[in-house]
Amino acid sequence: MGPATSDKTNDLLQGTLDLLILKAVSLGPLHGYGVLLRIHQISGEELVIQQGSLYPALYRLEHQGTIASEWGESENNRRAKYYRLTDLGRVRLEIETAKWNRMSGIIDGILRATPEEA
Amino acid sequence: MGPATSDKTNDLLQGTLDLLILKAVSLGPLHGYGVLLRIHQISGEELVIQQGSLYPALYRLEHQGTIASEWGESENNRRAKYYRLTDLGRVRLEIETAKWNRMSGIIDGILRATPEEA
Repeated sequence: MGPATSDKTNDLLQGTLDLLILKAVSLGPLHGYGVLLRIHQISGEELVIQQGSLYPALYRLEHQGTIASEWGESENNRRAKYYRLTDLGRVRLEIETAKWNRMSGIIDGILRATPEEA
Repeated sequence: MGPATSDKTNDLLQGTLDLLILKAVSLGPLHGYGVLLRIHQISGEELVIQQGSLYPALYRLEHQGTIASEWGESENNRRAKYYRLTDLGRVRLEIETAKWNRMSGIIDGILRATPEEA
């Protein structure tokens, strides 16, 4: 639980969690918990994804074929499932990033609207 | 149904719909359908909120006390319920806008991360 895990934040994240996971894995293969750690790291330690959201999302993305897994050895010599981005996942990441940029731009525009524009 | 109402977009919007409604109503009182029209307008005609999402949200926000309604007459002389932002709603709008700005900034940062940073 980090400071950014309020209810509202989680609402917002529901739509973007898949995108953030694809992005994290695009930077290099990761085991499940490693995805959490990388998102935390590249968010400037602002964002904590909950494990209860992470694992169903990894399952869903693997099922969709946007990530693939293979067994490997973790830093502490345990067997762990490592996830990597597939070619399909790379395309999906590009599409979803473009969608995010477009939609967040629209929302930013709405929030800047003044009474004169309405 | 506009171009911005794909499934993914709707996912994203779930967390921000309340915020967009508060913003729309903050620009002046509106009847229910007018909220739709104003969001469409101030989004540069990019965003179409579905009525099936709008009315439950208006109900919820009125119940929370962030918007209040009174009966008035619409442009075509029909009785219509007009919504306005309450003082509580104004505070909420500021808080939620700040949350959105923070969270969208974090996501933007994650999406810009390069392998060297990971």
